[in-house]
Amino acid sequence: MPTPSLSLNASLMLEQLRVLGTLGADDAGGGRTRIALTDADKAGRDQVVQWMRDLQLDVRVDRIGNIFGILPAATEAGDRRPLMIGSHIDSVRNAGALDGCYGVLAGLAIVRAYRDADVRPARAIVVGAFTNEEGVRYQPDMMGSLVYAGGLAVDEALDTIGIDGTRLGDELARIGYAGDLEPGALVPHEYLELHIEQGPILEAENLCIGVVENLQGISWQRITVHGVANHAGTTPTRLRHDAGYAASAIVAFLRERVVGAAPETTLATTGSLRLEPDVVNVIPRKATLTVDLRDPDEERLRTAEKRLADFLVEIARREGVRIDAERLARFEPVVFDAGLVEAIEASARRLGLSCRRMTSGAGHDAQMISRIAPSAMIFVPSREGISHNPREHTDDEQLVQGAQVLLDVVRRRLLAG
Amino acid sequence: MPTPSLSLNASLMLEQLRVLGTLGADDAGGGRTRIALTDADKAGRDQVVQWMRDLQLDVRVDRIGNIFGILPAATEAGDRRPLMIGSHIDSVRNAGALDGCYGVLAGLAIVRAYRDADVRPARAIVVGAFTNEEGVRYQPDMMGSLVYAGGLAVDEALDTIGIDGTRLGDELARIGYAGDLEPGALVPHEYLELHIEQGPILEAENLCIGVVENLQGISWQRITVHGVANHAGTTPTRLRHDAGYAASAIVAFLRERVVGAAPETTLATTGSLRLEPDVVNVIPRKATLTVDLRDPDEERLRTAEKRLADFLVEIARREGVRIDAERLARFEPVVFDAGLVEAIEASARRLGLSCRRMTSGAGHDAQMISRIAPSAMIFVPSREGISHNPREHTDDEQLVQGAQVLLDVVRRRLLAG
Repeated sequence: MPTPSLSLNASLMLEQLRVLGTLGADDAGGGRTRIALTDADKAGRDQVVQWMRDLQLDVRVDRIGNIFGILPAATEAGDRRPLMIGSHIDSVRNAGALDGCYGVLAGLAIVRAYRDADVRPARAIVVGAFTNEEGVRYQPDMMGSLVYAGGLAVDEALDTIGIDGTRLGDELARIGYAGDLEPGALVPHEYLELHIEQGPILEAENLCIGVVENLQGISWQRITVHGVANHAGTTPTRLRHDAGYAASAIVAFLRERVVGAAPETTLATTGSLRLEPDVVNVIPRKATLTVDLRDPDEERLRTAEKRLADFLVEIARREGVRIDAERLARFEPVVFDAGLVEAIEASARRLGLSCRRMTSGAGHDAQMISRIAPSAMIFVPSREGISHNPREHTDDEQLVQGAQVLLDVVRRRLLAG
Repeated sequence: MPTPSLSLNASLMLEQLRVLGTLGADDAGGGRTRIALTDADKAGRDQVVQWMRDLQLDVRVDRIGNIFGILPAATEAGDRRPLMIGSHIDSVRNAGALDGCYGVLAGLAIVRAYRDADVRPARAIVVGAFTNEEGVRYQPDMMGSLVYAGGLAVDEALDTIGIDGTRLGDELARIGYAGDLEPGALVPHEYLELHIEQGPILEAENLCIGVVENLQGISWQRITVHGVANHAGTTPTRLRHDAGYAASAIVAFLRERVVGAAPETTLATTGSLRLEPDVVNVIPRKATLTVDLRDPDEERLRTAEKRLADFLVEIARREGVRIDAERLARFEPVVFDAGLVEAIEASARRLGLSCRRMTSGAGHDAQMISRIAPSAMIFVPSREGISHNPREHTDDEQLVQGAQVLLDVVRRRLLAG
């Protein structure tokens, strides 16, 4: 069979990235906020579904709200085990325009290349946009792909209560994306995800393509410190049970003693910290903080969790406070499919693009789908490694190069059938 | 002149404390919230004004919203330089029922004793309820008495913008307490304030009365840390500019190095700490925290401020963040009037009540009024030293003993005329 000539409509892919980035735009600062299952997320979903329909894809929505656009195969047999390209379009607060969206819209660009060439692939191609990858409002993150891969029961996920007190299933129905497809119904033959690196490595080494061969483990906890509110001016330090000081000591310990013990691989972040009653002259009665621990090595990740747990006991005793730790998410490190990783590397080389194998520092839907199908990821550079921020940026040329590699990989996998 | 027999209506004073404590009651936990110039504060003010009218007092409200109830003297000459008894009725969030309210309602009980005995005092007695003593919504705290004493221009105070973005003058007018009396118009001959200790000393030493001879200095700052938001999983620690970590390091430093350097006298509290964007997997872009430093010795207080300032420079350099420090309030330590202090001690002894001289750890309106009139304070015990908390408690008997001492001091000062 001759290699069908498929060409990428780069300008349309870039234009769609721009348009999707205008939905949920923040009042100031050039960012956008499309937190899962909000009205802004609905606006993004509606736009992506419209673009899928423009490509005459068969659009399906499953019970957790994952959206799939299906390009049928040349033969019925080829429809059974599709090749899936996916990512997400939900965002953090005040986000950039690329995280997640790039992978979904590049997937549409691949399908468009087949449509434009009027070529039917040997296997159906499914472009997936997974629900709630960011986990800002409902936890755990990567929820849609986790449910899809069978790692979380759909009914349990629908009952998740958000930080705003809402029930995920109710919000999903409210925005009109409570579908009827059973999660996991379409089992992919292989899964590919194209994403910005969100880290500084490719830019620092002046490389075009990251061939992602593994992904670090992630441990999320919510820690609640229960102290005693009291007057800031009349309570001797020795009699205090200061929930705010204990919380700050935990954050300092994570940086100085947990990360300090494995500075090259272990990452620790407290992104959220809240005090009650949060008044200048009242010793905090309660502190709630999150801890995000990551390491590519499961043993080291467990060691970090252990160090933290031991310190919680120590600081609770020292300060006379009670501390509860609740696990929000826990994913072991993932090793991607060796064959797909080699295929990505080969395509990058074939296209004359510099590349390196690397570890993903971020969690991605690919890590969930890898439970049910051979998976791998392609990274492109992130300027200054910045993401989850309006300053997130990748040059258009680099975005197009990443999509070209994805197209080349898909084309060859589908010839192989 | 024979000593007029004056008797305290203890049960009515206690009943009024209970009733005032029901206004602004929180949904749960038994606390109440009457933050300055809110609807709940208006409800408290309306009730106190009604009780003043029940005593046929001449009620005046000044331009900053301080409320005064005046019992005229036996002679016109006695009206010129009144004896003032005051405190405040605004509260922190989720507060107890006694802080401030006790001093105001005990003042009304003193006036009631004169009314009941149909005795005219040698000097007018003014019961004052000062605006915004707590400083929760508008800063600085003790604002009403500060303005009254000439320490802050009334127009400047009216232009204060609150943490909720409101203008103090607008809220004062909205609740109907923008009066026309010029602050400071009634210059007190002497000022007395009865208050719960809000500390553990009297209870620990099993004493009835605290004779307050001085008050520690207070330094309030708002510190803002400007970092860079970035992805928690992909940003190497050495490349982070983590505003949340820097804020936590500041809180830990205050406890371990600033308080640690003078543990018997210096107090440091961070009551409020907020992160942006406050998301689990995003390195905080911005952290805003308050610092409350106190010490009875001005030199030591300055040393504490200097240690903090030096650390802000150090942590900003280490973490690559920008730190702004804004002064919210700064009051030097106050020494109360020796004659009034002796009079309070003498009255306690005369009534057979155990007492000791002590330092006030909290700021009080008395520290402001002491700028324009001889002033002193009387403390009663606080159970477990707890205040700014629904568990704030003083036994009824102890509350009545404090009011008896206040009545005895007032009676003798007014005989002396």
